[in-house]
Amino acid sequence: MSPGDRVVMFETGHFATLWRQMAGRLGLDVEFVPGDWRHGVDPARVGETLAADREHRIKAVCVVHNETSTGVTSRIPDIRAAMDEAGHPALLMVDTISSLASIDYRHDEWGVDVTVGGSQKGLMLPPGLGFNAVSAKALDAAKSAKLTRSYWDWAAMGESARTGFFPYTPGTNLLFGLREALKMLLDEEGLDRVFRRHARHGEATRRAVAAWGLDILCADPREVSNSLTAVVVPDGFDADRLREIILDGFDMSLGTGLGKMKGRIFRIGHLGHFNDLMLCGTLCGVEMGLHRAGVPHKPGGVAAALDYLARP
Amino acid sequence: MSPGDRVVMFETGHFATLWRQMAGRLGLDVEFVPGDWRHGVDPARVGETLAADREHRIKAVCVVHNETSTGVTSRIPDIRAAMDEAGHPALLMVDTISSLASIDYRHDEWGVDVTVGGSQKGLMLPPGLGFNAVSAKALDAAKSAKLTRSYWDWAAMGESARTGFFPYTPGTNLLFGLREALKMLLDEEGLDRVFRRHARHGEATRRAVAAWGLDILCADPREVSNSLTAVVVPDGFDADRLREIILDGFDMSLGTGLGKMKGRIFRIGHLGHFNDLMLCGTLCGVEMGLHRAGVPHKPGGVAAALDYLARP
Amino acid sequence: MSPGDRVVMFETGHFATLWRQMAGRLGLDVEFVPGDWRHGVDPARVGETLAADREHRIKAVCVVHNETSTGVTSRIPDIRAAMDEAGHPALLMVDTISSLASIDYRHDEWGVDVTVGGSQKGLMLPPGLGFNAVSAKALDAAKSAKLTRSYWDWAAMGESARTGFFPYTPGTNLLFGLREALKMLLDEEGLDRVFRRHARHGEATRRAVAAWGLDILCADPREVSNSLTAVVVPDGFDADRLREIILDGFDMSLGTGLGKMKGRIFRIGHLGHFNDLMLCGTLCGVEMGLHRAGVPHKPGGVAAALDYLARP
Amino acid sequence: MSPGDRVVMFETGHFATLWRQMAGRLGLDVEFVPGDWRHGVDPARVGETLAADREHRIKAVCVVHNETSTGVTSRIPDIRAAMDEAGHPALLMVDTISSLASIDYRHDEWGVDVTVGGSQKGLMLPPGLGFNAVSAKALDAAKSAKLTRSYWDWAAMGESARTGFFPYTPGTNLLFGLREALKMLLDEEGLDRVFRRHARHGEATRRAVAAWGLDILCADPREVSNSLTAVVVPDGFDADRLREIILDGFDMSLGTGLGKMKGRIFRIGHLGHFNDLMLCGTLCGVEMGLHRAGVPHKPGGVAAALDYLARP
Repeated sequence: MSPGDRVVMFETGHFATLWRQMAGRLGLDVEFVPGDWRHGVDPARVGETLAADREHRIKAVCVVHNETSTGVTSRIPDIRAAMDEAGHPALLMVDTISSLASIDYRHDEWGVDVTVGGSQKGLMLPPGLGFNAVSAKALDAAKSAKLTRSYWDWAAMGESARTGFFPYTPGTNLLFGLREALKMLLDEEGLDRVFRRHARHGEATRRAVAAWGLDILCADPREVSNSLTAVVVPDGFDADRLREIILDGFDMSLGTGLGKMKGRIFRIGHLGHFNDLMLCGTLCGVEMGLHRAGVPHKPGGVAAALDYLARP
Repeated sequence: MSPGDRVVMFETGHFATLWRQMAGRLGLDVEFVPGDWRHGVDPARVGETLAADREHRIKAVCVVHNETSTGVTSRIPDIRAAMDEAGHPALLMVDTISSLASIDYRHDEWGVDVTVGGSQKGLMLPPGLGFNAVSAKALDAAKSAKLTRSYWDWAAMGESARTGFFPYTPGTNLLFGLREALKMLLDEEGLDRVFRRHARHGEATRRAVAAWGLDILCADPREVSNSLTAVVVPDGFDADRLREIILDGFDMSLGTGLGKMKGRIFRIGHLGHFNDLMLCGTLCGVEMGLHRAGVPHKPGGVAAALDYLARP
Repeated sequence: MSPGDRVVMFETGHFATLWRQMAGRLGLDVEFVPGDWRHGVDPARVGETLAADREHRIKAVCVVHNETSTGVTSRIPDIRAAMDEAGHPALLMVDTISSLASIDYRHDEWGVDVTVGGSQKGLMLPPGLGFNAVSAKALDAAKSAKLTRSYWDWAAMGESARTGFFPYTPGTNLLFGLREALKMLLDEEGLDRVFRRHARHGEATRRAVAAWGLDILCADPREVSNSLTAVVVPDGFDADRLREIILDGFDMSLGTGLGKMKGRIFRIGHLGHFNDLMLCGTLCGVEMGLHRAGVPHKPGGVAAALDYLARP
Repeated sequence: MSPGDRVVMFETGHFATLWRQMAGRLGLDVEFVPGDWRHGVDPARVGETLAADREHRIKAVCVVHNETSTGVTSRIPDIRAAMDEAGHPALLMVDTISSLASIDYRHDEWGVDVTVGGSQKGLMLPPGLGFNAVSAKALDAAKSAKLTRSYWDWAAMGESARTGFFPYTPGTNLLFGLREALKMLLDEEGLDRVFRRHARHGEATRRAVAAWGLDILCADPREVSNSLTAVVVPDGFDADRLREIILDGFDMSLGTGLGKMKGRIFRIGHLGHFNDLMLCGTLCGVEMGLHRAGVPHKPGGVAAALDYLARP
C-alpha cells in the first residue's frame, strides 16, 4: 500500500478492530464497515462496496478469517466471488492467525492475495513466527507501494528464501518446532483429519452450550468457528468473574471477552493439539464453573457433548 | 530373613501374589492366606494367626497397603493393633508402591518395620528408584538374617547414606526429579492437601461408577483406594475389549485386569499429578467407551461426578 | 524520527551498514561516515560532525557498540562526551545486540537515548526477543516523530508495560527463559564477573592469534571486543575454506566474514554461556584447522592461551 | 551358580574387587588372583589355573573387560583361547560396563557366556538399565543353579522378552533413550567408527600424558583402554588435590583414584558422546591444572595431542 490508499475493513470483532487501528497508524484511508461482532463479513456488502467504487480507489479488502475474539468466521470463497462479480481489482487480504491448520483454508484455490498467519495457534508452537502467503498480484503491488518499511518488506525475505537463508536472525528453535508440527499435521494425522477433528470439537461444544440453555456469540450457523466458541453470559452476570471461579477452582484458564465483549462472554478454545477427552474435561470445567458462579443454566451440557462424541 | 523362615502373606490381589512368589523363590516358608481380591487384609485374621503361633515361628507379616490390581487398601493401623494385641514379635512389612504420597501412610506412627516404595506412582517420577523405610528392630533382624544377598543388603546403603554417597552407581537424574517432586508435594501443595485431593477424586470416581450401575471391585467401604478404582464389567462382557475401544477411540489407556481379574475389570488410575478436570476427562472417556462397547450401564456417571466435584 | 530527518551513522562493519540500509528504507537522510571495518566510531569525528551542524539538522547519532562482523567496539562514553562538548541536541542511539550482558554497558550512566538489544547473544536465549531502553528525551521525541509505524511504536508497549501486559502476543516461552538468564547473570554469577570472564576469554583469544602470527581485524587495542574476535586470514587463503575444513573435521562452526570481509576473516565467538575449557577446545580446533588447511602460522597459539588462562 | 561354587576372579582393579566382594556375599568360593592394578588378566595364568583344576570344581572365570578404576583392559579372546586350550568347561563371564559401545567387544564371536553391561557409559544414557547377554550354556547352567534369587533370575525376563513385555515395571523412559542411542551408534555413526573415534581419543590422551612426562597406570601397551586413561601423579603429590584445583578453576570433574589408587591417580574419561574438541578442552584443563597445582610436568601435552589429532 501507499500512504492514503483506501482499504475496506469490517468490524467483525476485536482483531479486525486492531487491524484497522494498525492500518490507520500506517496512514491508510480505512473504510471500516461497522458490525455487531456476531457475524462474519457479508459478501453482499463487499460486492456493493466495490461496485460503488467506480474509480477503483479501494486497493484492498481485508478480512479476518476466524475472529479469535468472537468465534465467528468469514466465508472467504463467497467474498472472493463477490469481488470477482464486481470486477474490482482490489487485493484480498486475509488474517488466518487462529484458523491456519485448524479450519480449512486455501490461499491459492480461493484466490487470496495476502494471507497472514502465525505459529502460536493451530501450528501448536510458541509465539514467534509469522507467515505470509502472497499472490503474484500482491508481490507486484508491493513493488510500487510507497509505505515506508524495512523489516516488513517482502523483497529481502523473498530473495533470501531462494537460498534457504534469512535476511535477519531467524527464530531457529521455532523453525525446528515448525518442522515437527508440519510432520504431525501433514504426515501423521493428515490435514483433512485435523480439520474434521476440529469440526467435531466445535460441534460438540456448541451442543453443550445449547444444552446449557446459553447462546454462542456467533449468530449465523454458516459462520461458526471450529477453533473456538464464544459463549454469552446472561445479563447481570460477569463473564470474568465466572472465568476467575473456574481458574481458581479447576486450574483452567478460559479466554476473556475482548474489547466490546468484556465481561459479556467467555471463550472456549478447541484448536491445535487437542482431543476428545481434553474437550470433555474443558466442558466439565465450564459446567461446574457455571454452577459455582450461580450462572443460570441447565446442567446437561456435558451430557449433550458426550452423546455426540460417543458416536463412532 | 533366613532361609526357611516363616512369613504370613495375604492374597489381596496380584501384587500380593507376586510378593508371595518372590518370597517362595527366596526360600521362605510362606503361609499364604487366601482372599477374594475384593477385601484388604483382615486384622482379626492377623491376630488369630499370630496368637496361634505360640512358638513364634512367624518372622514377618507382609501386607500390601494399596493393591494396585484391585483398588483395595488394607488398614495398617488395625493390623498393627492386632499384632500388638497378640503380643507377637513378628516384623510388619508393608508395600506402599501405589499408595506412597497419594494415600495417608505413617511408617513410624503406625509401627511398621519395613516399608517398600517406588518412584513411579505418587512421586510422579519415571520408574527406577526404590525406597525402604526400616525400623531399628528390622535393621537388627537384618544383621543376623542369612538369606544371601548383595545389592539388596541394607548395610552398604546405610553406611554410604551417612555421607550422602551411594554404594553403587545411583540414578542421579531421578534424584534430581525426586528433589523437585518432594518440593511439589511437601512445600507447594502440602501432603495433607495431596491426600485430600486424591480422596476427593476417589470419591468422585466411585460415585460415577455407582451412577453407571456398575460395581467397584472393592467390597468394603472402609477399604476403598484413593489411588485407583477397579470397575467390574458385567458378566458376558470383556473388560479388555472395552479398554481397546477406549484406547482406539479416545487415546486413553486404562489399567487391565491382572491375574485372576483378567477380562473382568478395568482400572481407573487417579493418583499422582492429577486434577479435577483430568479426572472428568477420564470419566467421560469411560462413559463414552461403555456406550460404544455396548456395555449395559446408566449414562449419568459423569453427571454424578460433576455434581460432587462442583461443590466448592 | 520523521521522514527526511538527518542521522549520522558510521561504517564500522556489516551491521552498521545494514542499519544504514534500514534507515534509508525508512526515508531518513543518512550521513554515513565511511570506515575501514577495523576501527570503532571516532569520537573526534562525532564531535566535528556535530559542531559543523550549526542548524541542528542532525537528529540522531547511531553507533553499534560491538560490531559482530568485525570484533571491534566503539567507545560510547567518549562519543557521548564529544556530543556533549559540541552542545548538540542529537539523540544517541546504540545497538548492543552482541555486547549486552557480555561487555560492560551503561545506558543511563553513559547518557544513551536509545539502546537496542536482543535475546540471542549474551542473554543466552534463542532469537525472538528485542529490547529497547529509552531515555525521557527519546520518548519525548517519539511523540512528535512522524515516521509511520505501528508494531514498532513505543507508546502501546509503554502503556501495557505499566500493568505487566503486552499490546501484542508476547513470546512467553522466551520470557520464562529470560527470567532464568537474568537469575544466572545477576544473582548466580554477577554481572561484574560475567564481564571479567569475557574479558579474560577475549584476551586469551587475542594472545592465541598473536602467537599464531596472525592479525586480528581490530586495529586499535582500545577497541577490541570481548564478545568475539575476528581473525584475518593471510592473502591468498580463503577463510571460508578454512571454516569448512574445521566444520568437517572438528564439528565446530566459526563465524564467516560478512559483506566486505567475505573470505578474508573468520570470527571466533566467546560470548554468553562460555567457560575456559570451551574456549580452549575452540582454539585447539582453530589451530588444528589452520594446520589442515595449510594456512601459514606458528603453532603456539593454544600454548599462549593456556599460559594466560593457567594463571589463577 | 550354586552356593559354594568355585569361581576364579582377578584383581585387575577396584571393580574386579567389588565383584569379588559380591560373589563372596552370595556364598561363592572365590579364588581371587592378586594383581597390581596395572595389568589386565593374564591369559596364561587363566590357562594354568584351569589346567590345575582337574576335577573341574571351577564353575566360572570372571573378567572385567575394561577396568574403569585403572584404564586397563583384559584381552578376552586370548583368555577364551586359554580356556579352550585347557579344555575346561567353566563359564566365561565378562563385565563390560565401561567398554560396551566404546571398545570393540564381541559376545558371540569371542565365546563369552555371560556379558554384563549398563546404560550409563558408552550408551550415553542415565544410569538405570542393566543388560545381560547369555550363552545357551549359561542359560542351561542357570536352570540347575541353586543360589536363591528372584529379581535377578533370567527365567522371568526371558519369558517376557518373547512378547516384548517385562516381568517387572521397566524403566520406560530409559528405553526410549536407548532406542535413540542405538540409532546414533548403529545407524548414524556406525559402531566401527565409534570404536575408531574412541581409539583415536585414547591415543591422543596417552600422547599428552607422555609429553607431560607422566605415566599412565596401564603398564602393558596391549591393554590400554580407549574409554578412559588413568594418570599417575608423582610421589609426594595428591591426585585429589589436583582434581579439586581443576574442578574449582575450570569446572571440570576428573575421576578420582578408587580403592588402592586413592590420591595416586586421576582418571580422564573419553567415552560415550565425545569429540576431538571436547577432548582438547579436557586436556587443556589437565595441563593448566598441573601447572596451578605445582605438579612437576613438561608443558607440551596438549601440543602433542593436537599434533596427533590434526592429522586428517
